[in-house]
Amino acid sequence: MSTSTTEREEGLQFQPRFDASGLVTCVATDASSGDVLMVAHMNEEALRRTIASGEAWYFSRSRNALWRKGETSGQTQRVVEMRLDCDQDAVWIRVEQQGAACHTGRRSCFYRKVETGEGGVTLAFVDAERLFDPKAVYHK
Amino acid sequence: MSTSTTEREEGLQFQPRFDASGLVTCVATDASSGDVLMVAHMNEEALRRTIASGEAWYFSRSRNALWRKGETSGQTQRVVEMRLDCDQDAVWIRVEQQGAACHTGRRSCFYRKVETGEGGVTLAFVDAERLFDPKAVYHK
Repeated sequence: MSTSTTEREEGLQFQPRFDASGLVTCVATDASSGDVLMVAHMNEEALRRTIASGEAWYFSRSRNALWRKGETSGQTQRVVEMRLDCDQDAVWIRVEQQGAACHTGRRSCFYRKVETGEGGVTLAFVDAERLFDPKAVYHK
Repeated sequence: MSTSTTEREEGLQFQPRFDASGLVTCVATDASSGDVLMVAHMNEEALRRTIASGEAWYFSRSRNALWRKGETSGQTQRVVEMRLDCDQDAVWIRVEQQGAACHTGRRSCFYRKVETGEGGVTLAFVDAERLFDPKAVYHK
């Protein structure tokens, strides 16, 4: 194992590894239920602002823009704890979610489970109630 | 919103969206504690095998190879539930983890938390006991 790998995995220096697009993957879980709320990306600035403010910031690949979670919808995330994984290219934040994390109005983006049956692989709704109406919130 | 976006977000058809490298992001959480164990990637074949077998398969970007979790270490993951997120490009599996998920021997890859202090941003070990000796398991 190279020194840099040992240092990255066993050291206490904060040295996130951004990918070719300058991003790390971030998983946000509900600090009370433990449920995964969303998976998104952070660039260096989003990570810096999240740490500095205690509120989750992300980088939207589709909009190519820095984005404070909840800035449009009001559904903010207060960060209770942030962890880095072994090779420092993934971030886990445990958050106090205000309302719903998903832009569809659900508490979590993971509102469908995968099922297998005679018809092959399909999805089924689970925990899929909407907490807000996305049309009203995003004016789309 | 386009029909295809509506269908992808509100439909019950399983249509995972693989990125340019043919991968989706997968988050594995501990079915009992709710802790995030690891973040990794699946290609179409890994996803197919995971669904068919009920054991987690991944695709290693560094080794460019399909990989059954635990095939070397014995630390397998039995999938209790699999969910897809709103735009179907991320997978969440709740698993019964045999032993440790991390190649460093820890239960979870997220064994360091981010702290801020006078010295800036640093890491601190948390839940970092090793359940196995990686040198003995991987013969490195």
